[in-house]
Amino acid sequence: MITSSRQWHACLQLLLILLAPALALAAEPLPSWQDTAPRQALVQFVENVTRDGSADLIPVPERIAVFDNDGTLWSEQPMYFEVLFALDEVKRMAPQHPQWKTTQPFKAVLENDHKALAAAGMDGLKLIIGATHSGMSSETFNASVKAWLAKARHPRSGRPYTEMVYQPMLELLDYLRAHQFKVFIVSGGDVGFMRAWAEEVYGVPPEQVIGSRFVGQFQAQNGQLQIIRTARLAHNDDGPGKPESIDALIGRRPVLAFGNSDGDLQMLQWTAAGQGKTFVGLVHHTDVKREWAYDRSSDIGRLDKALDAAQQNHWTVVDMARDWKRIYPFD
Amino acid sequence: MITSSRQWHACLQLLLILLAPALALAAEPLPSWQDTAPRQALVQFVENVTRDGSADLIPVPERIAVFDNDGTLWSEQPMYFEVLFALDEVKRMAPQHPQWKTTQPFKAVLENDHKALAAAGMDGLKLIIGATHSGMSSETFNASVKAWLAKARHPRSGRPYTEMVYQPMLELLDYLRAHQFKVFIVSGGDVGFMRAWAEEVYGVPPEQVIGSRFVGQFQAQNGQLQIIRTARLAHNDDGPGKPESIDALIGRRPVLAFGNSDGDLQMLQWTAAGQGKTFVGLVHHTDVKREWAYDRSSDIGRLDKALDAAQQNHWTVVDMARDWKRIYPFD
Repeated sequence: MITSSRQWHACLQLLLILLAPALALAAEPLPSWQDTAPRQALVQFVENVTRDGSADLIPVPERIAVFDNDGTLWSEQPMYFEVLFALDEVKRMAPQHPQWKTTQPFKAVLENDHKALAAAGMDGLKLIIGATHSGMSSETFNASVKAWLAKARHPRSGRPYTEMVYQPMLELLDYLRAHQFKVFIVSGGDVGFMRAWAEEVYGVPPEQVIGSRFVGQFQAQNGQLQIIRTARLAHNDDGPGKPESIDALIGRRPVLAFGNSDGDLQMLQWTAAGQGKTFVGLVHHTDVKREWAYDRSSDIGRLDKALDAAQQNHWTVVDMARDWKRIYPFD
Repeated sequence: MITSSRQWHACLQLLLILLAPALALAAEPLPSWQDTAPRQALVQFVENVTRDGSADLIPVPERIAVFDNDGTLWSEQPMYFEVLFALDEVKRMAPQHPQWKTTQPFKAVLENDHKALAAAGMDGLKLIIGATHSGMSSETFNASVKAWLAKARHPRSGRPYTEMVYQPMLELLDYLRAHQFKVFIVSGGDVGFMRAWAEEVYGVPPEQVIGSRFVGQFQAQNGQLQIIRTARLAHNDDGPGKPESIDALIGRRPVLAFGNSDGDLQMLQWTAAGQGKTFVGLVHHTDVKREWAYDRSSDIGRLDKALDAAQQNHWTVVDMARDWKRIYPFD
């Protein structure tokens, strides 16, 4: 049988379409990263643990990668974005809570009284988070976060908060997924807050977002079956709470972990202590021009003990100013 | 250009290999199900919500399916298999706990004294579960479960417990996954117990297994960083605890849910109350010959209120004797 070149070309074309995902892998990875040590270490690690026949091959189901969120995947200055959401929510919800006009810390928020707000401290913040994050269904809270994101703008850039994400890290998430890693977010932030946008922004579905949680209660409310967010904290996903929640919810020790602050230390240590090859990285905020520069003495995202640990253990430290060509997608 | 038939055939062969997963979809689904109402309802639901252009199409990320385990995916008679594990573990661990020889309920277990064990009741059982499920790392517990499964045999069938799974349900899990559903187990059993074998037996990875949990504590023990299982219950994944844990850990309302007992009722109700098309099913143990027959008055897997709810709400009730050609893979 002799077939025509037309059949042959049609067949080849179909093959190319089917093989496109594999061909995408061959593209140069991590284009927004300078070709410095962190990028080289990442590429070397991923190739080493995913290449067929590699002595360090990690089976696909064990390719679990965990990322902190605030300061690791998106910015966290001048204040954690979730706190800025809570402050805006106090204003939005104030008409339903007339007593807030005369009650701290809500009065301070409504009057933009930064001094009184600072004086209210962590206890005041907890009241604000509780009032704005509980007493409604999961679905209602999700909708509130989405409504806020649609109109809120970052005070310095004037951009939507969901654009204040790090382009190099978006590329890293894609690069890992292309090599069949399963990417999880493990953040001190409220899990419901992140789930409202993590899928669209990071491609991380709700079931791969882990965070702090309030106790949810199954209830019939207004004739509907719903999970109501109570004001009781179920889990504080910070410090040792991170490896604890990974063990509880993922049930496997990650092989790659990325953080940026002391709150990530135990997650990084626990990952590094796993069997086989592991990759542990820190984002170091060194870029006062394009982002912010802060570490050991910052109240937000303090990086002190984890920086020492990184130096002692030869973890990869990303120097944002040196190692990233671009910070944000809009740069 | 004229190409040879050899090139043409090589190209076609490669296409067939690449298209194999799609072709598998075309095979007749659920072969161990009788072609009665439950099978028809399942196939109709899955085709309706996954067919391109369907008015009821459910986007892939929302195709969340949840399954109870005991009595839904594997047998639970004459006793929940995890309890049988705990009883065997008491015997295995006894040399390290000489006081058990004289302390109830452990004495009853060591002496096979069923009467004294029954007298110890739920409080006794909690002591046995606590003693055998806590005080070790997650990894050590995982290894204990695997070691037990390797040698333990079901008292009636003489088979490994992991063979006491329902062939029709294995096919249903595969059928759903082939249509891009993400399958989760949501069980009252200990999550660590299930994770030790669910991936191999059901193809459900650890991060898609939800269950009851003890509080895990991050610790440095014997120079190793580990999560130690404490004896404090973190979550009881039963009744309302099921929708609560689904909301907390998956963050989406399922579109398909399967259970077999009153402990699944709230999960089924919450799923049924979701927007869009949903499928809610119950396994009814009606097969005294090939499995067991029990429902409203059973201490194990009591099915009473959920059976009423199924009848009122026209949920699918699988009558094992009538609707399943085969029960176990070894049948």
